[in-house]
Amino acid sequence: MSHEHILSAFDRDLEGVQALLMKMGGMVETSITEAAQALQERDDDLAEKVRAGDRAIDELEVRINEDCARLIALRAPAARDLRIVLSVMKIAASLERSGDFAKNMAKRARVLGQMSAVPGAGGSLRRMSKTVTEMLSHALDAFIQRDADLAEDVRNRDREVDQMYNALFREFLTHMMEDPRNITACMHLHFIAKNIERMGDHATAIAEQVIYLVTGELPEESRPKAESVTTIGVEGS
Amino acid sequence: MSHEHILSAFDRDLEGVQALLMKMGGMVETSITEAAQALQERDDDLAEKVRAGDRAIDELEVRINEDCARLIALRAPAARDLRIVLSVMKIAASLERSGDFAKNMAKRARVLGQMSAVPGAGGSLRRMSKTVTEMLSHALDAFIQRDADLAEDVRNRDREVDQMYNALFREFLTHMMEDPRNITACMHLHFIAKNIERMGDHATAIAEQVIYLVTGELPEESRPKAESVTTIGVEGS
Repeated sequence: MSHEHILSAFDRDLEGVQALLMKMGGMVETSITEAAQALQERDDDLAEKVRAGDRAIDELEVRINEDCARLIALRAPAARDLRIVLSVMKIAASLERSGDFAKNMAKRARVLGQMSAVPGAGGSLRRMSKTVTEMLSHALDAFIQRDADLAEDVRNRDREVDQMYNALFREFLTHMMEDPRNITACMHLHFIAKNIERMGDHATAIAEQVIYLVTGELPEESRPKAESVTTIGVEGS
Repeated sequence: MSHEHILSAFDRDLEGVQALLMKMGGMVETSITEAAQALQERDDDLAEKVRAGDRAIDELEVRINEDCARLIALRAPAARDLRIVLSVMKIAASLERSGDFAKNMAKRARVLGQMSAVPGAGGSLRRMSKTVTEMLSHALDAFIQRDADLAEDVRNRDREVDQMYNALFREFLTHMMEDPRNITACMHLHFIAKNIERMGDHATAIAEQVIYLVTGELPEESRPKAESVTTIGVEGS
């Protein structure tokens, strides 16, 4: 009886903290979407909104961490439950980083708004962002539903994002080679592409966390790389 | 009596996991140092050693996480002790990311070895790496000694790294503008500089973790940014 009571108290607390995590996920997805929109439409006000909104995301991470620490201290969860709580903290950290990248995209959108536009770049980056927000959303769903198959789907989509990044990298390089006046804008665009790719890595990391939680095993070649080296004709690097 | 026994068991376990963390820190510092050396001396074998060595760092992070989880489950530490254990996990995550950046630097060193050298770049990047490894080392010392002053010193040095990065960014941009044939090499060099700056951010994050642990307060403007936007003459971005 008292044991049951402890269990359900843990479950209730866990639900609370998972709800905060979902809220945080929603805020990050919105940030990414709006940053990409601000970039394509050269919308300064929207970019500023994204930049200012990052603080709320950071604060939510702090609160989630505190709630998790309290939950662990109060409920002393056993092995698997503990793993779930630790996963929540790791996922919150990934979301916070992704939020930072969205903020950075918004900052660069404002800088780019003062330069001549690079044709097609805004649209391509927005498509890439869309893929990444979907991945993030599905990774969080997979976590809540403890769905390893859905998590595996997210993992597989990371390759799509990498391909988009590689295509854009070559495109920006061409623009730079053709006209040195494009270099500064292309450097910013390139960083944006790289940051979107990194958000994809974070979505993948969340998916791998889910797979670990459900199956007890880390997927092979477990961690997404910090970043892959674009080889530009140099194989095997 | 039994209370004392539990306390000392926690302390013993904590010492064990902190020792692993120090070991991991040493490995990451070596990786960064050797990656920078490989880059400057165009030493493929050393670059390959760094690349191959990253797996051991990743495995150590997994082990630290497992030990921490076991420690929490077994010893049910109270509030402050729990915070210390959670800090160990956060610091291990920062070290793991830094190790990934070092690996990435080593990969790019190999790619760059096949291009004509950009004068001065290897030396500048090596100096920047040296500052960052010192910051990492001091941040870990500050953690072990719970020394908020030392942690504050680390935080303040992050500005040095940012300045080095900004100077390099302008230098690479100039090289690219002058001769488009430098663009590819400079893009790689620029990413290396950015990654070193990010390692500095991680050292700062560790230092902030220490300040939080010792003082109970997060430093103002708490998180280092995912990356700062280099404004290149565009103020206020």
